[in-house]
Amino acid sequence: MSVTEALAAYVVGSTLEAIPRDVRDEAKRAIFNYLGCALGGSIEPALDVAIRTLAPFSGNANATVLGRAERFDALHAALLNGIGSHVHEYDDTLPKNYIHPSVPVASALFAYASANPVSGRDFVHAFILGFEVESRIGNAVYPAHYSAGWHITSTTGVFGAAAAIGKLLGLTTKQMVWAFGLAATQAAGLREMFGSMAKSFQPGRAAQNGYTAALLGRADFTAGEQALEGPRGFAAVTAAEHDLSKVTNGLGSDFELRDNAYKPYACGLVVHPTIDGCSQLHREFHPSPDAIAGVRLRVAPLVLDLCNKSTLTRALESKYSIYHAAAIGLVRGKGGLQEFTDEAVRDPLLERVRAVTTAVGDDSISEDQVHIEVVLRNGETLSKFVEQSLGNVHRPLSNEQLTEKFVDQAVLALPHPQVDAVVEQCWRIDTLPDAGDLARATSARAAATTRTARTTH
Amino acid sequence: MSVTEALAAYVVGSTLEAIPRDVRDEAKRAIFNYLGCALGGSIEPALDVAIRTLAPFSGNANATVLGRAERFDALHAALLNGIGSHVHEYDDTLPKNYIHPSVPVASALFAYASANPVSGRDFVHAFILGFEVESRIGNAVYPAHYSAGWHITSTTGVFGAAAAIGKLLGLTTKQMVWAFGLAATQAAGLREMFGSMAKSFQPGRAAQNGYTAALLGRADFTAGEQALEGPRGFAAVTAAEHDLSKVTNGLGSDFELRDNAYKPYACGLVVHPTIDGCSQLHREFHPSPDAIAGVRLRVAPLVLDLCNKSTLTRALESKYSIYHAAAIGLVRGKGGLQEFTDEAVRDPLLERVRAVTTAVGDDSISEDQVHIEVVLRNGETLSKFVEQSLGNVHRPLSNEQLTEKFVDQAVLALPHPQVDAVVEQCWRIDTLPDAGDLARATSARAAATTRTARTTH
Repeated sequence: MSVTEALAAYVVGSTLEAIPRDVRDEAKRAIFNYLGCALGGSIEPALDVAIRTLAPFSGNANATVLGRAERFDALHAALLNGIGSHVHEYDDTLPKNYIHPSVPVASALFAYASANPVSGRDFVHAFILGFEVESRIGNAVYPAHYSAGWHITSTTGVFGAAAAIGKLLGLTTKQMVWAFGLAATQAAGLREMFGSMAKSFQPGRAAQNGYTAALLGRADFTAGEQALEGPRGFAAVTAAEHDLSKVTNGLGSDFELRDNAYKPYACGLVVHPTIDGCSQLHREFHPSPDAIAGVRLRVAPLVLDLCNKSTLTRALESKYSIYHAAAIGLVRGKGGLQEFTDEAVRDPLLERVRAVTTAVGDDSISEDQVHIEVVLRNGETLSKFVEQSLGNVHRPLSNEQLTEKFVDQAVLALPHPQVDAVVEQCWRIDTLPDAGDLARATSARAAATTRTARTTH
Repeated sequence: MSVTEALAAYVVGSTLEAIPRDVRDEAKRAIFNYLGCALGGSIEPALDVAIRTLAPFSGNANATVLGRAERFDALHAALLNGIGSHVHEYDDTLPKNYIHPSVPVASALFAYASANPVSGRDFVHAFILGFEVESRIGNAVYPAHYSAGWHITSTTGVFGAAAAIGKLLGLTTKQMVWAFGLAATQAAGLREMFGSMAKSFQPGRAAQNGYTAALLGRADFTAGEQALEGPRGFAAVTAAEHDLSKVTNGLGSDFELRDNAYKPYACGLVVHPTIDGCSQLHREFHPSPDAIAGVRLRVAPLVLDLCNKSTLTRALESKYSIYHAAAIGLVRGKGGLQEFTDEAVRDPLLERVRAVTTAVGDDSISEDQVHIEVVLRNGETLSKFVEQSLGNVHRPLSNEQLTEKFVDQAVLALPHPQVDAVVEQCWRIDTLPDAGDLARATSARAAATTRTARTTH
């Protein structure tokens, strides 16, 4: 059996009973974290623009866009959920391949569930399968695929969305193989877009395209049947080196969800150790920004590859700046949504600290680590070595910390009582008779949305 | 100025007056050839399935799907026009990079024009620009991009569609740069899908995605501004070797339309010399299929790379079989739509000739050439060397041959009087006050479409 067919057969034949309890629990945490991010991003200009532009092209408007009052067809809702949930870069990450796995899968699933009856149990099951499919494909092509410049979240996410929606639609194995082929034909997204609205568009499009692939697969719209392993399939074309055995080895017993990490900071993962360490220095020593003469960072070389921008002009760019990461940690002691706004980019205190910060790559420093030296004007030096960054798999956020993160974001979009109700419902998603109720519970009232739109333009 | 910005500035600033007359005439031939293909493909199962599946997701149904009775929003119409016009592989080709350039651009333009007022003059102008953009990007990344396995028609076509629609929408240079960024984020399509319905889906999706990129660009949805030349931009990520000077050199004076070729045969271009030569042998010697003991082909090595399938099970596969190409030429003396049907695949005479045909790659044979030896049972050998294949730029189809090809296809979908009216109108598209009239003139009456749908399922 080919890799593509084996993966399709696994998805089609999977039962929730066969999935270990800890994996099902972790799925709930991932879905919970996802939904908070979707609400936090639901008032962002990128989403406003996309909604205004695409509204005339929406079909049967029976689906909810998470956190919004507007309704769209389910395919557009998948795209828009994806933009909103990824725009703050606050979603989850698989450290081993840098995929943000929940966005493509959950964006499609919430769109589907808001327009079609599906139990919470089936929703969670489909989510686990979609997560597994995209993560395993990512493992097979990482790091060559990512190094080449692909935005691996969207290029693999389209397969995850196809698997999840295909499971709910009851595809046969053959149809799932075609859906994977149709996913492969739409796999796209470039790291060149990082720092612009197009970044969050990419996983949104992956959700929409994967959903479309599943619909077409079910209708027997044929595709090449070796989407992954074919000589001109996804792996060969997009990764100079790849190992497709990682797609199928341990399928059904090893679950990638166990390695999922949730961000404590609303920005690119590789700058987290720096925010963590600088926030610790802030709490321990309260250095005044005026007193800071220089900040010297030693970081994993990849950090400079990804986040080497010191002169910032837009809020989105600040999420990819190791210099901004040091500044917010030292000056504010945190890295929430408010630390990555236009206001934060223009904050003179942050600007000053960014300007005196330098960073060098060091092969002995892992991507979870950083070595920080803060030189004060009085000649004193504060040092900190971060061994394991907060939020990584060895220092995971607790359910309470996840709830805190959820609420911090969701209150930007929805009234507090509505947020509390959504939180309560989301933690028991697996018991809901209709998962669409949860999606609909996040709808903003029209008046509130109009007010928001007025303030963000 | 960066390559992306220079290309955007050219598109934005271009005037039709500055484009030479021969290029404008060739644009009309390309559009004419395109429309015939769209009508010929409009009754195909791939399009039926896509229409049925996507109908619930269509927004404001103000756009025409060429040759059909159903109406969709313009973005879906762009996709569906792309599927229909490419499904028979009968559309045009730029031999230097194997792009089928008209489908992504014209599919978007006809969809746009059917829903928005646009003069024929502006339509032709936008077509020329879209054609130029995708072809030049293709030149810059060919052959590495194509050899890697990308379906270059869709990966570059998304830029062409963005340019064409962006021109009509009046984008600024900055907005066009973003539109190109959004095109780059959606550039996808694999050669692995050749021989399945996904093949024609790809340029259709490119049309739809490029159109979307232009809409979002106009709405100031930002994207990376070095879509083509950035370190993780389209060229670097998708082509191991590339030369971006080919995007801008001679821009405004050299036009790729001058090299466009129209297929006399409804299949992959590289098997055309074989059909041509075998058809000539058929006309000259009338060999009975029973009398043919063996066929020996010497072909360009790429032909075997693309078209080396001798055992055929589906109609679509026959378009990529050098063995089938030899058989239809020798047995039927032609390569129209009827030579690539399931009936043709099962035809015992064609099966017999395919079975005795062999092909070897020969570096001294160009992709426009073939050396054919037909060994007869009586020991006689018939030989033919094709130096320049019919339909290539040195032996182009005349306007009369293009009209004949158009009518042959269009009568499959529409009544003859309607076809004649469309032919007449299409040859003077540049003088139409509203190009949408031409799109609407291709609408099938509902009854006719229902009848067709019944016979093709």
